[in-house]
Amino acid sequence: MAMIEWFDDLAIGMQFRTGEARITAPEIKRFAAEFDPQSMHLDEVSAAKTFFKGLAASGWHTAAIAMRLLVESRPFGDHPIIGIGGGVSWMAPVRPGDVLYLEGEIESLTPSKTKPQGTVGMKWTMYNQHGQAVYAFTPMTIVPRRPGA
Amino acid sequence: MAMIEWFDDLAIGMQFRTGEARITAPEIKRFAAEFDPQSMHLDEVSAAKTFFKGLAASGWHTAAIAMRLLVESRPFGDHPIIGIGGGVSWMAPVRPGDVLYLEGEIESLTPSKTKPQGTVGMKWTMYNQHGQAVYAFTPMTIVPRRPGA
Repeated sequence: MAMIEWFDDLAIGMQFRTGEARITAPEIKRFAAEFDPQSMHLDEVSAAKTFFKGLAASGWHTAAIAMRLLVESRPFGDHPIIGIGGGVSWMAPVRPGDVLYLEGEIESLTPSKTKPQGTVGMKWTMYNQHGQAVYAFTPMTIVPRRPGA
Repeated sequence: MAMIEWFDDLAIGMQFRTGEARITAPEIKRFAAEFDPQSMHLDEVSAAKTFFKGLAASGWHTAAIAMRLLVESRPFGDHPIIGIGGGVSWMAPVRPGDVLYLEGEIESLTPSKTKPQGTVGMKWTMYNQHGQAVYAFTPMTIVPRRPGA
């Protein structure tokens, strides 16, 4: 991916894969205590009595880990990853010990008519170590055009 | 909102408002260091040179604060807030010192045909202390039906 740097280097159907992140029970509880204080995210014993039947990460914790994997994988070279929005889906619980990674595909490319940039539509799917899809994000992001393009 | 507890208590057009949360520069940097390590979120001097022209919270930090405000406001009584997904939009930067709150409206109500629950579609918009919309989330959430309904 080292040669991809500008909007003009991208093509519909191009695929990406990030590195991996392992999530632990203390991380799940710490994030939840600050941002999503509900039983299924806070404590194994209480979580066992919920819909999730065991400790599960907050969906926003999962989304935040996905962002870290994205930033580390630099899909657009050194340019910042600036998202204007998108759709999130949570398909399966993320459990302590899970090892997560993302696969991405470019679905749309729209050059701006007025600015030296374009909007990139992607679908990122996060999988666990069993190959089960746990989360998806379909962001629209802004990527600069190659100078002179 | 104390009388709202079950799917059957909800009506399209019903409105909600959460409490407020103030965000600080150390919080912005701490979240970013863990989940979104990009210059605009990490350091005032570097951030001044970016598109954001100053320190701004990671969009996922903003989303996580919105979740905490939601959980604290208990829009569905004591039932857990279980989201299956939705759309996120970031409209304006969230800055150190901003005081944020959410306003919500029920947009759709779909009873399950097979389970004692329904899917609630809402639009939550987060505003800062200037009344400027900074973030929106349109989640689909699962809420149980009143026993016997």
